[in-house]
Amino acid sequence: MPGHERLPDGSVTSPTGFNASAVAAGLKDGGQPDVGLLVSATSCAAAGVFTQNRVRAAPVLYDEALLKERPGRLRGVVMNARVANACTGERGLKAAEAMARAAEAALELPARTMLVLSTGVIGVQLPLDRIERAVQRAAKSMNPAHGPEIARAIMTTDTKPKHLAVKVETTGGVVTVGGMAKGAGMIHPNLATLLGVLTTDAVVEVAPLSDLVRRVADRSFNAITIDGDTSTNDTVLMLANGASEVEVRRDLEGWKVFEEAVALVARELALMIVKDGEGATRFVEIQVTGAPTEPMARDLGRAIARSTLVKTALAGGDPNWGRILAAAGAAGIPIVPERMQLWAQRRAEAGGPAGEWLVLAQDGAVADADEDAARAVFTAPAIALRLDLGMGGAEATVWTCDLSEAYVRINAHYRS
Amino acid sequence: MPGHERLPDGSVTSPTGFNASAVAAGLKDGGQPDVGLLVSATSCAAAGVFTQNRVRAAPVLYDEALLKERPGRLRGVVMNARVANACTGERGLKAAEAMARAAEAALELPARTMLVLSTGVIGVQLPLDRIERAVQRAAKSMNPAHGPEIARAIMTTDTKPKHLAVKVETTGGVVTVGGMAKGAGMIHPNLATLLGVLTTDAVVEVAPLSDLVRRVADRSFNAITIDGDTSTNDTVLMLANGASEVEVRRDLEGWKVFEEAVALVARELALMIVKDGEGATRFVEIQVTGAPTEPMARDLGRAIARSTLVKTALAGGDPNWGRILAAAGAAGIPIVPERMQLWAQRRAEAGGPAGEWLVLAQDGAVADADEDAARAVFTAPAIALRLDLGMGGAEATVWTCDLSEAYVRINAHYRS
Repeated sequence: MPGHERLPDGSVTSPTGFNASAVAAGLKDGGQPDVGLLVSATSCAAAGVFTQNRVRAAPVLYDEALLKERPGRLRGVVMNARVANACTGERGLKAAEAMARAAEAALELPARTMLVLSTGVIGVQLPLDRIERAVQRAAKSMNPAHGPEIARAIMTTDTKPKHLAVKVETTGGVVTVGGMAKGAGMIHPNLATLLGVLTTDAVVEVAPLSDLVRRVADRSFNAITIDGDTSTNDTVLMLANGASEVEVRRDLEGWKVFEEAVALVARELALMIVKDGEGATRFVEIQVTGAPTEPMARDLGRAIARSTLVKTALAGGDPNWGRILAAAGAAGIPIVPERMQLWAQRRAEAGGPAGEWLVLAQDGAVADADEDAARAVFTAPAIALRLDLGMGGAEATVWTCDLSEAYVRINAHYRS
Repeated sequence: MPGHERLPDGSVTSPTGFNASAVAAGLKDGGQPDVGLLVSATSCAAAGVFTQNRVRAAPVLYDEALLKERPGRLRGVVMNARVANACTGERGLKAAEAMARAAEAALELPARTMLVLSTGVIGVQLPLDRIERAVQRAAKSMNPAHGPEIARAIMTTDTKPKHLAVKVETTGGVVTVGGMAKGAGMIHPNLATLLGVLTTDAVVEVAPLSDLVRRVADRSFNAITIDGDTSTNDTVLMLANGASEVEVRRDLEGWKVFEEAVALVARELALMIVKDGEGATRFVEIQVTGAPTEPMARDLGRAIARSTLVKTALAGGDPNWGRILAAAGAAGIPIVPERMQLWAQRRAEAGGPAGEWLVLAQDGAVADADEDAARAVFTAPAIALRLDLGMGGAEATVWTCDLSEAYVRINAHYRS
């Protein structure tokens, strides 16, 4: 994308003025990092998007209240993996607060300046003593070089840390946008067990930042699904510390390129999550076109993306595309079956070109596609599906992965 | 149940006046039966419940129109496995009609007296020639003894045929209710790839029969889920031929015991389907109590029953009950998390007693249940969960099974 420069080993600390630290509190085995601190040298404008699950973990409740109270005066995030602090009642709420206080004390910050993120097993109380001691240690080694390490600290079933950053030249000057995320299984629209943190050194007001985060999340983190479940802890936070002294405002020319940079970082993180889906062997992009509205297009794409039967067929490389139309029909959206057109395409791989678009269904019925050609598409490591509803001009894209036997193996014994 | 007598090897032909026949049309491998005929010696009152998927297979469209046209003058059902005749367009609709005509001609019945059921792969045209020839052969060996065989003919990934019948003494005299079903994977509320046929020799009017079938389906076939997908072909049909000359009417005393008999047959068939879920290793009953309304209780139970994360934890025998509350929170129902209570119980097995109810969560938070006791419940072959919402007096029960690696294996290569 013109104007964007992707930084090598970029992360949430790539924007000026952010420091990080990750340590092992002993929540994970083998001395792996499991507690992290991210802190800005100066106050940030902050915004967040939270799970739509009615059962909300203590950190979600804590952060949402804090963002309402003082969205323009926050300093950073303290985070832990392995225990979600969800379904933990009053005691859990106090633990989330104590975790924030411990970070603020260790960093010599005023009270109510640190946000909290937790991920892991639901229904287990936070081992607060261990986390508090870890936070004290972490505070002693704050450094911009540790950005990638906190992305590693919040991993659960993720197989690799997810972080990146881009530098972007706006009309007002150069700003940097960084991000990290944790995902793997349980990922679904409305942010199931997904934690994401975006940072920037641009000067942004709270109100446009809030709008931006919601808009960007809808087209990235909310457009991916791995297993259709939504979680108690899902959170995407964004912090803007203004350290670049470059102002971006919706009424200034630089806004568009800034929003594109944030969208790029969020979408790349979301795609990293899908590609790292538990047991995933195949990456799938689903384009829904010809819809009455964009939300309807996205909902329909998600319904296909979370269908167990579609996902197991994908795991088997089986061009059982009838299941795709059936999943569309079950989405609770008033589609007209006779107007549906369905195509599939093998996506471009490293070096190789993309395949032709293969017509699978026309007017809601089988198009008698060549079986060998269809199988070649469905056995590719990356596939695109395009479903046109013939009902309007709106469209949306969602991303998912297949459902393999390995997914079941991983999730059958997650706690042990 | 008093007044009900379960008949040995009972089936749709147990009620007086029903005959059946099953033959191999070569749709399945190895000469297995795949086409069946069920016919009453006299005209039937008939009713049906159909899939709520917007994409509806040709037989669904055909039957629904026929039931509207002449619900009191139908004679039977012609059915096939292996090809669903779904997403097959105009040609598929003509094929469904031709299949019915072939059956009517072979049985020397008037036109538009036979209903049609198909199940199998979506998006493949019906091999009509083979089905027509099979129907002609089948019509030559109609016999009440062949009831269990048509239950076998419509099996797809089912591992065993599902059929039963009960005799029931109403105040007006003795009537018989029979049934058959096919299910296995893809079973979900609103009847995903579920075919069910109920028969009776009672004299029943069309209107109360329609109401009865809907009510009964809601508490049986619509209360089970295997993988959360809904299909293009789901259908439950009921035929009442009046051959017993015993009238059942809603205003007569015998109605209640008759409805109970139909409900018993439907529920037993539904439970057979869950227990035969693809790759299922564990049977789970979910009771939702304290709900504002029965539909809300059922929807919430279904949301838990179809959660991939709950089902994989069940496969692993992992008492990861936090996922159960998270699934309840994601159901789209305005629950109050702090009012939720959750219990689990090992169900009674052949000979053995049921276990104690173990408290897992109180007021929406972890109840610190003994880990060994919890593991003992969750590793049992049959488990009951009870979730009280603390919001009202309505309740519902749903049934499901776990999601095992074998499920994925079966569904990854269904077409091949």
